[in-house]
Amino acid sequence: MSPDDVTIVEVGPRDGLQNEPNHVSTERKIAFIEALADAGHRRIEATAFVHPKVIPQLADADVVASRLPEREGVTYTALVPNDHGVARARKTGISQWAVFTAASETFNQKNIKASIDESFARFASVLEAARECGRTVRGYCSTILHCPYEGRIDPSLTVSVVRRLIDVGCEEVSLGETIGRGTPGEIRDLCGRLAVEGVLDRCAVHFHDTYGMGCANALAAYELGVRTFDASAGGLGGCPYAPGAAGNTATEDLIFMFNGMGVKTGVDLEAQVAASLLMEEALGHTLPSHTYRALRGRGQGPKPDHLEMS
Amino acid sequence: MSPDDVTIVEVGPRDGLQNEPNHVSTERKIAFIEALADAGHRRIEATAFVHPKVIPQLADADVVASRLPEREGVTYTALVPNDHGVARARKTGISQWAVFTAASETFNQKNIKASIDESFARFASVLEAARECGRTVRGYCSTILHCPYEGRIDPSLTVSVVRRLIDVGCEEVSLGETIGRGTPGEIRDLCGRLAVEGVLDRCAVHFHDTYGMGCANALAAYELGVRTFDASAGGLGGCPYAPGAAGNTATEDLIFMFNGMGVKTGVDLEAQVAASLLMEEALGHTLPSHTYRALRGRGQGPKPDHLEMS
Repeated sequence: MSPDDVTIVEVGPRDGLQNEPNHVSTERKIAFIEALADAGHRRIEATAFVHPKVIPQLADADVVASRLPEREGVTYTALVPNDHGVARARKTGISQWAVFTAASETFNQKNIKASIDESFARFASVLEAARECGRTVRGYCSTILHCPYEGRIDPSLTVSVVRRLIDVGCEEVSLGETIGRGTPGEIRDLCGRLAVEGVLDRCAVHFHDTYGMGCANALAAYELGVRTFDASAGGLGGCPYAPGAAGNTATEDLIFMFNGMGVKTGVDLEAQVAASLLMEEALGHTLPSHTYRALRGRGQGPKPDHLEMS
Repeated sequence: MSPDDVTIVEVGPRDGLQNEPNHVSTERKIAFIEALADAGHRRIEATAFVHPKVIPQLADADVVASRLPEREGVTYTALVPNDHGVARARKTGISQWAVFTAASETFNQKNIKASIDESFARFASVLEAARECGRTVRGYCSTILHCPYEGRIDPSLTVSVVRRLIDVGCEEVSLGETIGRGTPGEIRDLCGRLAVEGVLDRCAVHFHDTYGMGCANALAAYELGVRTFDASAGGLGGCPYAPGAAGNTATEDLIFMFNGMGVKTGVDLEAQVAASLLMEEALGHTLPSHTYRALRGRGQGPKPDHLEMS
């Protein structure tokens, strides 16, 4: 892998599906994950060991995690928020566990009913158990730039939370730009600060297309040296009640951009579209990714033979 | 205006509407244009003096052009492809006329049934008439990077067509990335070549969101020094039969990005959304812009109060 190449962490099976109210069967999830691995993904966030009442869609985490296709070089990740999650996760072959906190105190309180300090206390034993079992841990830091409750987040707070996640043993931190309000200048500023702190090479970025900034932000992060990008098949993770409303940055759009720039992702775009189609069929609503739609023939191809000036 | 600031050329009333099959009344078009001027736009592409059979939606070009709101500092543009167009345009107050050609011979043939040379011959008299009447001329160069028929376009061809448009008297050239397949690396390469040719400061960029690259490409062009960006209210200009399928880069998305970067556009985002809403109501289908949807409350706002990790 050249230092210019990138790794995509496909989060569709977990982050993409978690808010979908339409039940997706375990069979279909496994087929989806298999298709993603076949497309070339080497990192797939497969599920979450959280209470079924919290995320009903992922209530089958134990079964999914025990039936993941074994592929050489593929790392599967699952959220493991606490000791209950550890008990479940250690029975499976999931090789990377993920813990989560946020740069915003208010968001953390509303989201997981814990302060930032409390969230670190809560997942200390997850990190310990992971070390015992030989699993790596990924840390999520949400609201890196903007919080739905607090507004703009002081980037030095974000840097301190990222630093702390690494210091407690996270192999990697995913920088969650949770509400999609961030723009390229802010991304550059934050990445610059993380580089000065010496932790940028341990960070992935996780953008949302709420305001259409996903690819522009990814471009800005790439330029600052980020090489790991979370993305969701077809843009899964948008609001299911607003067709076309976008959630996670779409894997297809990122692959399209990087392909055009000669940056290898290791994922075949056509095969990715085929994987996303499985979920579109399972969910019964259109997925928002522009590239997915264009390649599926529902986007705007060459115009009919009348005047087209631009 | 600081050299870091940008000008948006709002092309919604022409490029956005031209392929819309749902008839929009002249009254509504005027109200739309008025709302755009009120939002702060100083350049609006208002209509096209082409044969009504070619673009039925713009058959009322003469009436629209004669009823444009008079606002200090606002320049209205209209397509004026030939002598018939000139005869109509000179009766109106449209202060900028636009002619169009492409970097791809095949696209030009299919689109306007003329070779590139023939298109230049055809609009020579438009340029002459414009000089006589004291109007400026904008040149469109389509398929700057990719052609639906020829594939990848040699950038030196594009540079030569842009050069030629300027040499025959175009004040500005709009670089049309017609099918939306271009990515930031190609944009940088082309802009670099145009800078070497000494014409980049006379160029605007015109992107499409077919593959979701609009904002990323705009960011790349901005970094290379481009300061004029064509965009369409709400992303008008997508395929009306595929809700959410994107066409022109949306004005709202560009404003959102530039606002976040501290780059002034002179256009008020809320007022822009209000202008786009007029067209959404007139057309009866959702507009694709992410930012438009998010601000209209149909996008993905803060998630409900369950677990949200990224």
